[in-house]
Amino acid sequence: MMHLYYAPGSCSLASHIALEEAGADYETVRMDLGAGDQRQAAYLALNPLGRVPALAVDGAVLTENAAILAFIAQRFPRAGLAPIDDPLAFARVQAFNVFLASTVHPYHSHGVRGSRWADDPAAIEAMKAKMPANVASGFELIENDWLVGPWVMGETYSICDPYLFAIARWLEGDSVDPARFPNVEAHRKRMAERPAVRKVLAAEGAVEPLWRKTLA
Amino acid sequence: MMHLYYAPGSCSLASHIALEEAGADYETVRMDLGAGDQRQAAYLALNPLGRVPALAVDGAVLTENAAILAFIAQRFPRAGLAPIDDPLAFARVQAFNVFLASTVHPYHSHGVRGSRWADDPAAIEAMKAKMPANVASGFELIENDWLVGPWVMGETYSICDPYLFAIARWLEGDSVDPARFPNVEAHRKRMAERPAVRKVLAAEGAVEPLWRKTLA
Repeated sequence: MMHLYYAPGSCSLASHIALEEAGADYETVRMDLGAGDQRQAAYLALNPLGRVPALAVDGAVLTENAAILAFIAQRFPRAGLAPIDDPLAFARVQAFNVFLASTVHPYHSHGVRGSRWADDPAAIEAMKAKMPANVASGFELIENDWLVGPWVMGETYSICDPYLFAIARWLEGDSVDPARFPNVEAHRKRMAERPAVRKVLAAEGAVEPLWRKTLA
Repeated sequence: MMHLYYAPGSCSLASHIALEEAGADYETVRMDLGAGDQRQAAYLALNPLGRVPALAVDGAVLTENAAILAFIAQRFPRAGLAPIDDPLAFARVQAFNVFLASTVHPYHSHGVRGSRWADDPAAIEAMKAKMPANVASGFELIENDWLVGPWVMGETYSICDPYLFAIARWLEGDSVDPARFPNVEAHRKRMAERPAVRKVLAAEGAVEPLWRKTLA
């Protein structure tokens, strides 16, 4: 049985959806980032970086969405979540996901946790001010250069789709008008109609035991 | 024939070393980031994000070190650069590489290109001031939680090693004393002795035609 450590509203939604799409046998452990669950010693013992998602599986702990997503695709090949037998196509999938992880997600983070990169309150405000333009620049690349449609990689749904969905849900909160990106907006709507996505969104909105109880 | 677009001193060193370790048939295209080669239209047509590395292969262009490294491991399985037949072990390899891409490399970047995330000169200085502590925090995790030794994943050299090496070479420039991280420092020395690494470092130091000529 796998255990996914996730936080509602965070990028861990990507791994959560992928587990559901794969038909995996998993349980979730809900983290409250606002309460600092991710900095508790018991969680840091699992993931010293103190972030979500983390996937506990077979005695190991996997971190980083891009790595967890590829793992789910490889572990559940019949779900067809990535072209795992085609190194070049698989690398394209990974390039997109790592682009989200290393560029687009950090753009967003500068609006909500600038204190990670500077201590001066004025600097944190300056990062917040530039964040919407940066997020929009990332989505311009997604809109024009990555998103083939109907899914990110074209006709076949893949592990790129839940990751894009998780991050695209932040657009309004990041003061970026989704109407600027019609392909992304259509993708978001398409995703929201998938049964797995609806189930996961409902689960993340539901009251569940906090991770402390699970670890106790 | 593959073409690797790289810039001396950048993280593209990781992919360059991996190609060499794999015994790949490749040519390099040297980019001058200081001269803005990465923002020229001809390069943006290859990689709209305008960063290195990029690997042109079989009519496609792969971006993002973590994706390129996994591609090299899968394309050249006899080189044994990743546990590609073990999804869990492969995911650990990927988690480390994505951690470098999404956390440690951005920590470093705040010291050298803070203008990516804020326009105010004082904010850029504030990022620069916090950068060494952040880079050190990333290397503390590498030192204590990731680096098994002698290689990142233990006895077997993998695509994690050239990526760590590329980023660990920035420590002095980032005002972080490598002596604080003896495991990383031993790894750096071990890497520098590998024939492939020596060959690549020599090649990156050598004068080569700029990419403009190659594309022309």
